[in-house]
Amino acid sequence: MIVDEDRLRRDIDANAAFGEIDTDVGRGRTVLTGTEANRKARDRFVGRLDDAGLDVSVDAVGNVFGRWVPESADPDAAPIVAGSHLDSVPEGGIFDGPLGVYAALEAVRSLQERGVEPARPVGVVSFTEEEGSRFGGGMLGSAVATGQLDPEGALSLEDDDGVSLESALDSIGYRGEDVVDASEWAGFLELHVEQDTRLEHAGVAAGIVTTVTGIAQATVTFEGEANHAGATAMDDRRDALAAASEFISVVERVGQSEADAGENTAVATVGKLSVGPNATNVVPGHVELGVDVRDVERESMERIFDALANALGEIESSRGVETSFDRTLDVDPAPMSDVCQDALRAGADAAVVQVLSMHSGAAHDAMRVSRITDAGMLFAPSRDGISHNPREWTDWEDCGRTASVLTNAIEELV
Amino acid sequence: MIVDEDRLRRDIDANAAFGEIDTDVGRGRTVLTGTEANRKARDRFVGRLDDAGLDVSVDAVGNVFGRWVPESADPDAAPIVAGSHLDSVPEGGIFDGPLGVYAALEAVRSLQERGVEPARPVGVVSFTEEEGSRFGGGMLGSAVATGQLDPEGALSLEDDDGVSLESALDSIGYRGEDVVDASEWAGFLELHVEQDTRLEHAGVAAGIVTTVTGIAQATVTFEGEANHAGATAMDDRRDALAAASEFISVVERVGQSEADAGENTAVATVGKLSVGPNATNVVPGHVELGVDVRDVERESMERIFDALANALGEIESSRGVETSFDRTLDVDPAPMSDVCQDALRAGADAAVVQVLSMHSGAAHDAMRVSRITDAGMLFAPSRDGISHNPREWTDWEDCGRTASVLTNAIEELV
Repeated sequence: MIVDEDRLRRDIDANAAFGEIDTDVGRGRTVLTGTEANRKARDRFVGRLDDAGLDVSVDAVGNVFGRWVPESADPDAAPIVAGSHLDSVPEGGIFDGPLGVYAALEAVRSLQERGVEPARPVGVVSFTEEEGSRFGGGMLGSAVATGQLDPEGALSLEDDDGVSLESALDSIGYRGEDVVDASEWAGFLELHVEQDTRLEHAGVAAGIVTTVTGIAQATVTFEGEANHAGATAMDDRRDALAAASEFISVVERVGQSEADAGENTAVATVGKLSVGPNATNVVPGHVELGVDVRDVERESMERIFDALANALGEIESSRGVETSFDRTLDVDPAPMSDVCQDALRAGADAAVVQVLSMHSGAAHDAMRVSRITDAGMLFAPSRDGISHNPREWTDWEDCGRTASVLTNAIEELV
Repeated sequence: MIVDEDRLRRDIDANAAFGEIDTDVGRGRTVLTGTEANRKARDRFVGRLDDAGLDVSVDAVGNVFGRWVPESADPDAAPIVAGSHLDSVPEGGIFDGPLGVYAALEAVRSLQERGVEPARPVGVVSFTEEEGSRFGGGMLGSAVATGQLDPEGALSLEDDDGVSLESALDSIGYRGEDVVDASEWAGFLELHVEQDTRLEHAGVAAGIVTTVTGIAQATVTFEGEANHAGATAMDDRRDALAAASEFISVVERVGQSEADAGENTAVATVGKLSVGPNATNVVPGHVELGVDVRDVERESMERIFDALANALGEIESSRGVETSFDRTLDVDPAPMSDVCQDALRAGADAAVVQVLSMHSGAAHDAMRVSRITDAGMLFAPSRDGISHNPREWTDWEDCGRTASVLTNAIEELV
């Protein structure tokens, strides 16, 4: 093992105390952007960057960037950066985010201690509001750092109580005046928990991401006619929920068929649904649902949406309901760069860690960064594939192994 | 027309002012049991009974009973009773309930004015909490009057704020000390709005109910596994909503098939559904839904439930989800008595009103009363079949016509 696994563990352990929740199963935390728990997590991270001799900057949306400029390096050279995020979903786990942030710092410490002489600076970054649990959307900090969202627009976003990101960051002292500009980076690497069982099932400690799938979401509504469930004959009904159920079955079938036709990377999900008036004795008049479609190829996503649109048309005409279909999110698939994938593979070889190539079905900050510079992602195994849950778990040994791969990959790139 | 249509209209109009809601479409009211609006509606009704010379009694659960003992009648003879209810659903219409109550009173006034000499007393009743909108269940007053629910059990029922029926009735002065005992009645007739479009479509002013359908309801749950919608491959899922959607399609298909096999009286509905965790990017782990099944024959209802249980078993085994199925309500079909149906038919002939024989898919107080004495139901047309809504409407002329039929039928029976 190249890194100090115990030191990495102490960092993740200490970070897990901020926003810790009381739970009987596993270890959970709630660290929403701009809360007191978030301030403490940031303060400790800044302190640890400082301890390791990195220069800390904080940008307008609270992205924290630590810069190590070794004596061997050209201080003006574009840096190699690694990191992830420190915020969590409500009642989330302790690894999703912090593993990538503290493994990046551990990589720098390891390079320093082993007297490696990089030709470039090395950066460690923690992006703000990756989960989107308070201000919506997700991957907000990396969107600003990559120029995909302007800081003013981001700062004006409000939480459910009408508190802006600007005032939330002000209240914890993390609305900075520096600039974190990912377009100046030579490359970016993110270590993250897999959130799936492929590594666990294969008995392999590290996954190298080839592509982060594209995500397209849509809101679909069905307008039928609410009516008395007793007094309305079956063939007099325009039942919005029966119509929606037919559609949900199509979503599942089309997703499965696209997955079967490809490399099992396509997914299509209806995760959210509401019914009106929602009473057992009333034929439903209104349903609204959310569809989520992902794949590594844009064409495959479009084939799925085309099939769904066709199915909706048939449901409209056969059932006499009105439907609407609004695309609410549309993110292209993000292939990881060959340079970064190669560096991660070489890093794994050097650490004698077996790897699996895989796509990521979940979105990550590396997805944003990949639009403007070379980006790569490394996955650590998730026990039972569970995440966003106190039961989320990655063995400390796997944390150490993947942090070692990350360290070697950075050494390859600098 | 035998009755005074204008007088009936003034009664329904005046009653509509209690709990009146502000609406742009139609006329609506919210009259929940034990509220100030309910007190006013009851006070006016008692006053009108009094004006017509009826003796008023109020029982423990607030059922109001007016008794007319004509000089021609044996005061100890079992009375013929007509009536319905004065409570409404939240934001309901002005006819559902009040039409049957005030038409019954109008019938008595008409008999009096025409010098009819009944051999029996005639009763006019308003049952408490038919809609079940505040204390749950529905048809509460008729359940107590027919001995299907004891008054103590009824009085201890609580609304969502923990207020008991007992204290709600106390607060409006309608927890009476009399007894209203439907087992002492020679027969009961209820005029009610149809809440469906069969009369409207047939262009007929009155419907004679042959059977009130039985109602069985069940709560069905699906337990799958909540998981990341991006990171979980299609064939690794145990999607509770996809499973529930398959089931909802079966409910619709089985209901339609049983309706087609019979006289189009069977209905099967999923009107209520909730999803957990209910986020677009999470594969649903939990669904709970409510099924409502009705038909005029118990055997047909059981065939539907058997088919649903079979389908659930197949869904469990093919999808690896766990399901549960709990029957929450089970009411037998209630055939209306031949004596009452014949009286209503004769009454319609005498009033020169065309009738249609039909089942009732909705439950009514007459359903309870039919368990212990002869009961009959008469329907008036509902515009567009709408009820439980400010758009509920029955033409005043149809109110008058059906009240005339009711009056003649009472005359037949006394």
